Amino acid sequence: MMKLYETRIAPNPRRVRIFLAEKGLLDQVELIEMDLQKGDNLTPEHKARNPMRKVPVLELEDGTCISETMAICRYIEEAFPGTSALLGQTALEKAYIEQWLRWIDFYFMLPTGMAFQHTSGYFKDRMTPFPEWGEECKRQAGGFFRFLDRHLADKPYICGDQFTAADINALCALDFNKTIKQRIAPDQGNLQAWYERLYERPSIMA
Amino acid sequence: MMKLYETRIAPNPRRVRIFLAEKGLLDQVELIEMDLQKGDNLTPEHKARNPMRKVPVLELEDGTCISETMAICRYIEEAFPGTSALLGQTALEKAYIEQWLRWIDFYFMLPTGMAFQHTSGYFKDRMTPFPEWGEECKRQAGGFFRFLDRHLADKPYICGDQFTAADINALCALDFNKTIKQRIAPDQGNLQAWYERLYERPSIMA
Repeated sequence: MMKLYETRIAPNPRRVRIFLAEKGLLDQVELIEMDLQKGDNLTPEHKARNPMRKVPVLELEDGTCISETMAICRYIEEAFPGTSALLGQTALEKAYIEQWLRWIDFYFMLPTGMAFQHTSGYFKDRMTPFPEWGEECKRQAGGFFRFLDRHLADKPYICGDQFTAADINALCALDFNKTIKQRIAPDQGNLQAWYERLYERPSIMA
Repeated sequence: MMKLYETRIAPNPRRVRIFLAEKGLLDQVELIEMDLQKGDNLTPEHKARNPMRKVPVLELEDGTCISETMAICRYIEEAFPGTSALLGQTALEKAYIEQWLRWIDFYFMLPTGMAFQHTSGYFKDRMTPFPEWGEECKRQAGGFFRFLDRHLADKPYICGDQFTAADINALCALDFNKTIKQRIAPDQGNLQAWYERLYERPSIMA
């Protein structure tokens, strides 16, 4: 059986769990919990799985390890072709979804993560926080809420009529903003409607 | 004919040019130069192509625009299947290459870019630079030189025997380090050999 090294409360492993749940593949992996603040990820055993010492890591049955959320999702998408496509089917769909995945990573998830790390000092035993930079990152993440709200004015999902990995990743990044006390504003009705639409899917609680 | 909005000296457009050159597809695009420091990318026309106002952007013949370097590369990989595969063929190859692409983006290209922006003040008309954060980013990028040097001890290319997009992206990130005065160290022989191996390919000068 495949193993997924993950942290229940962390946003990146959540992306993989929802991705698996949408495809009906959650029963294909054994979930192995790691406590990041205790440093479970800093052991030599975990470094052998992922030199960057992050979660999630997917370990295949033959021991091969794949790191990085989207590389794991790519593997799952390609290795289980009978399941619902979350990364697109045509060249243009794949590119359009990837464009959004990268916007969400670079302009939403990443600034949110940096805002959290630099303003909370959660990992201050292993990095130097710059609180001013963290505040700037929080503003950037806040800008993405507004961008998404405008974008969702005329479509049910980020890439149009189809639910895709872009919705999963944006939802996880949005919820991660709770750690920096940033939520959907009352005037962001399109974003709020999309958020509620997603929470109707059973996968989202995976 | 497709159009590629780009900036000759910027590292992300360079990734796309090399990707196209490796596939023999450079003659399929019209290159349109944009001066970023002058703000060619901040016009309403360019915002309509890419709301993030970045380069590169690939405009297809029907006017559809694709932003984000790797989304453009994904489109090219999928839309021109007869050309040499740079993003992998099997599920595992695709995942392994994507893992490396993301490591290179998050731990090499991105810190290099932030180091450049926050220590040089190149874009200080449109962002607040935090020089101390820039210095920390420069150290992170320097760590990736060492990581790559160790990784390349026993293989000609980053993902093994085959040249892939990971090599293109690492090379462009490495060269981008010149802007923060960071180069291959004399004791990084594996990295230097790989670097010279890549510069033997005609595509690299594209």
